[in-house]
This record gives sequence, structure tokens and C-alpha cells, in this order.
Amino acid sequence: MRMIKNIAVAAALVSVSAVASDALIQKAKQAGLKPIPKKMSELYKLIDNPKNPITKEKIELGKKLYFDPRLSKSHLISCNTCHNLATGGDDNIPVATGHKWAHNPHHLNSPTVYNAVFNSRQFWDGRSPDLEDQATGPIQAPVEMAMDKEKAVEVVNSIPEYKMAFEKAFPGEKITIKTIGKAIGAFERTLVTPSRYDDYLNGDSNALTKAEKEGLKTFIEVGCASCHNGVGLGGGMAPFPAVGKYKYANIGDFHGDKNGMVKVPTLRNILETAPYFHNGATYDIKEAIAIMGEAQLGKKLTQKQIDSIATFFKALTGKKPYIRYPMLPVETAATPKPNLD
Amino acid sequence: MRMIKNIAVAAALVSVSAVASDALIQKAKQAGLKPIPKKMSELYKLIDNPKNPITKEKIELGKKLYFDPRLSKSHLISCNTCHNLATGGDDNIPVATGHKWAHNPHHLNSPTVYNAVFNSRQFWDGRSPDLEDQATGPIQAPVEMAMDKEKAVEVVNSIPEYKMAFEKAFPGEKITIKTIGKAIGAFERTLVTPSRYDDYLNGDSNALTKAEKEGLKTFIEVGCASCHNGVGLGGGMAPFPAVGKYKYANIGDFHGDKNGMVKVPTLRNILETAPYFHNGATYDIKEAIAIMGEAQLGKKLTQKQIDSIATFFKALTGKKPYIRYPMLPVETAATPKPNLD
Repeated sequence: MRMIKNIAVAAALVSVSAVASDALIQKAKQAGLKPIPKKMSELYKLIDNPKNPITKEKIELGKKLYFDPRLSKSHLISCNTCHNLATGGDDNIPVATGHKWAHNPHHLNSPTVYNAVFNSRQFWDGRSPDLEDQATGPIQAPVEMAMDKEKAVEVVNSIPEYKMAFEKAFPGEKITIKTIGKAIGAFERTLVTPSRYDDYLNGDSNALTKAEKEGLKTFIEVGCASCHNGVGLGGGMAPFPAVGKYKYANIGDFHGDKNGMVKVPTLRNILETAPYFHNGATYDIKEAIAIMGEAQLGKKLTQKQIDSIATFFKALTGKKPYIRYPMLPVETAATPKPNLD
Repeated sequence: MRMIKNIAVAAALVSVSAVASDALIQKAKQAGLKPIPKKMSELYKLIDNPKNPITKEKIELGKKLYFDPRLSKSHLISCNTCHNLATGGDDNIPVATGHKWAHNPHHLNSPTVYNAVFNSRQFWDGRSPDLEDQATGPIQAPVEMAMDKEKAVEVVNSIPEYKMAFEKAFPGEKITIKTIGKAIGAFERTLVTPSRYDDYLNGDSNALTKAEKEGLKTFIEVGCASCHNGVGLGGGMAPFPAVGKYKYANIGDFHGDKNGMVKVPTLRNILETAPYFHNGATYDIKEAIAIMGEAQLGKKLTQKQIDSIATFFKALTGKKPYIRYPMLPVETAATPKPNLD
């Protein structure tokens, strides 16, 4: 009888927990949080670009270009150098470092490429509308890959396998820096990382631990979701407290777009993408949470709230796509030579 | 009748060709050329290190470490930066370039890691006995990954997944820079690239074209195989003409080991590993062949001989191993921070 009673209590608890979870899922959705869809048809609709529809040919070509250091002036730096798919889709350093070991002049941190497709705009100041456009920037930036766009095209045109792959991916289109960006962008669109958080929002009440659910609740209630929302838990533009008592606001001369807005970083895989902030000012996620509470929400979060939010972040570590390391086609006598200077 | 006669002639030609091929295979073997064995049991016997037997656990761990930039001072450079498995196992530049964009002080070129297991010794001056030992060098070299060996060990020890992987790969062994080298070395031993040339030496007379067979014959007859022999078509030590009229001998202050000997580069995948020579002095394989003829064999090769040898080199481009790009375990608060200076 005692055992039967206990089972009944357990069943009641499960039921209460399920109801509570469902309420939290509703609360999350009301706060603007959205999962990565389970169904591939919905996912592809979400990540696709009508102006550059994803195809298998573009993904394969884009992946090769993404890993190809010969798109840089030195032939040493690829997209993957700073947005390393092995280490959370970013580098592991505070400030982006490129050609001739130059640091980003605004002391900007390389953001992760994983789930960047969910950003409303690209770059910290949001100056680029999409991944296809964004991809052409670092190739040419003097402190990044430092390549002349004509030289990048020359490299590709000098390698017959690339010419064929472009013809397959973009039939009849001329190879330009834009076509290169379209191929890389198509590949990057596929770099999404579904997590337990998505399973939860998609209806699996047991996908999060009790503590993670508490954390999600706290995350919503203190107001984090007012900026970190949507499928990306971020990716929009938000005002940036450029002055004030927070040291992180005063490093560098970067103040975002002309309205002072800065891109809200995605929180997906956040525990794999330290250091944090646009300037990589801290490696400590709890410090980052506390500072955001003060700087953006005007609240001094309690240690319990901070811990709880950090616990929720564990559920945001997603499953990375399977990447076969590409074997790149060999250069020819016509390929422009590297220039280390 | 005419048709029947032609068939008979054709049959005779095939037969002659097969005999000729067999004779060339014998000639190649007499010249010290050896194929990568077809049978895995023989291959593993050849590439294994009795002092560090290859295991699945070591290969998996070693692959991760090989791709891990956090083994460098900056957290930006991995073994794969200079020995890029996507581009023939080397970088694409004349002079190895590492931490803070420093160039190798002897203007040395990064050799390919593919088939390096067949080298009798490692490094250009042969100062290292094997891959396990070699792998610990670039991690610490100030102009390469610039990492303190204690810091490298600290990085690994700070990441629980790595600690577990080391415990599985090297049960009971303490993690030191040597254990790190043993894991990386075990992985590198598997980076062999069988080619049509191997099929040919293993008995498939049709694996090479007629022109490639001619090239192999020329290669042997003019004397290339006196240094470029063994399974690696190179990998031994040879005298280096440090003075003379060849500009390639006078660049830099590197003169090999204390006896003036320099490692003979492997010719496997040679068409994918430009620029050539210890100092990356030329991108042109035909120029390289001509210079080697003069400098090492004291012969002015004819254009026909040079072309023929270059044609043979096509058969040395091998099949690369399938590499799944590793997703690396995430660092912890205890992981030493990167230092870009």
C-alpha cells in the first residue's frame, strides 16, 4: 500500500512537472524564444536565402573555400582560422588577429559562425545584411585575410577543379568575390547546432534538468530575453552602453553602428565561445552575466540568479554538424603566389 | 584476316608491354624503390613504432591534439596550420611562419606531414629520431607555436575530456610533453597516401601510363633514386651542396647537420607540395628537377628528361586519408589563457 501510494505520488509529481514545463515553454515562447525546427523542411525554409538558395553543390564548394588559406594574401589564413569549427566556431582569443599578426583596430572579438545564420544582420555593427555579403569582408580586410578581391578571384580561376565546381554551383555566373561569398554563405547557413534547449521548446519536457528549467525561467524573468531572443537567442541589434562605470564599455573605440547599436551575440554554445563581449573582455560567463545585468538591464543580479542562468546555458551547447575535412584542389602555375608582407 | 592479324599484333604488344613493365618494376626495386604495402597487416608493421605502438585511442587523441590551436602560446596555431592536411600536408608558402608572424630564422620550408613516417629521421637536419619526438619541437619553438612545455601540459590537464582520453590511450602514464608527442606521432604515422605508383610496384602493370613508366625509367637511370628511394622516395640524409653557383644553396645560413647532411624530401605528392627545397626557393617542379640534376648529380638534364620525370611525378599523388574534422573539448576556467605577445 505504501509502495502504491508512493507510485501515485510520483505520478502526480511527474504530472505537475509536465504541466509546469508546458507553462514554461509557453512563457519562453511569449518572451520571443524560438527553437531550431525539428523538421528539415522547416529548418531549410528558415536558413535558406531566396536570393541564393542552398544547394548541395554550393555547400560543398563553400566548405572548401571556407577552409582554403589560399584565399588570403599570405596563403596561411582561412575563414576557419578565426571561426574555427573545431572550437565553437570562433578563435579562442580576445581580439581577432590576422595578416602579419595584426589585431582588429577596434579590439573586436571574432564571433562564432555557428548559428550566425539566425542573426538579423552580420558584423558587430550590423553593417552587412547576410552571410553571403559578410563572407567577402574578412577576405579583403587588411588586418584579417588581407586579400585583393581580384587576387581571390584569380586564385579560384587558376584552379580547374574550382572552376568546375563554380560552374556546377552557379551555372553561367561569372566568378567574382560575390560568387565566392555566395558559396561560403551557403555553407555557413548549414552550420546550425540543435541542442537540448530546442528539444525542450519543441515539446520534450524532459530535455532540460530541473535546474536548467529554473535557469530558463530566471533568464526570462530578469529580462535577458528582451535582447537574447528569437531562434538565435540574440542576433538582433541593441543599444550599447558606450559610457559608464563598466570597464568593458570603455575599451577600444568601437561604438557600433551610427545609432550606437551593437549586434547582440547569440547565446547558443555560449559555454564554448569565451572570451565574451565584442572586445573579449572576460572569460568568465558568470562575470559576463552580472555585467550584462547591470549594463543592459540596470539590475544587480543575485548570485543565485547568475548561477541559475549559467546553469541554463549548459542546455544551449548544441550538436555540431559532421564535417569531413576537405582535401583542397591543388594550385597551378597560374595561381598567384603568397605574399607574407 | 587483316583484322585477325591486327589482333595478334595487339596481343603481342600487350605482352611486350607487360614484360617491359615487369622489367621496369624489377629495375625500380633494384634501385631501392619500395611501394606502400597493400596489406594492412604489412602496412601497420611498417609504420608502427615498437616504443609507441599505434592504437585507435592514440590516433583519435593525436588527431585532436594535431588540430588543437590551444597547444600554441597564442591559441591560434596548431600543427595543422603549417602542416595542413587539406593542402598536401604542408603550408603553401616558402618559409615557415608562426607566432607573431615570425619566419623560420634559417628560412626553412615546412615539409609535408604526409608519409613523413617513412623518413629515417625528422627535421631538415635530421636531429629528431621519430615523429613522436619531432612533434614536441614545433609546439615549443619560439617562431612556431611558442608554447612552454609546462603550459601545453597544463592546457591538456585542464580539460577533463583530454585527461580521460590520455588515460585511455596511455593508461597510468603521466601527461607530459612527451606523452603529447606520442599521441600526435601515432596519428601522424597513419598519414600515408598510397598512389598509382604503389599499385604499379605492387604488380599492377597498368597502373601507370606509358609516359609515366618512361618517366620512372628516366628517374632511375639519371640517378634520382640514389637519394629519393625507399618507401618514401626520400626521407634519408644526403650531402647538401652548400656552396657553388646555385642560388638555392646560398640562401639562409642553414647547412644541415654537423656533417653537412640534409634530409631528402619525400617525392610523394610532390605536385601538391610546392614551393620546393628546404628554403622553398622555387614553385616550378621542372626547375627543381633541373637544379637537383646539376647540384646533386652533376648532370645537365635534357628538357625531355626533365619533362619525363615530371610526368612520372603525377603517379605519386596519393589517396589522402578520410579525416573527420574533430570537435575539440572545451577549455575550463583552469585552462591557461592565450598570450598573443
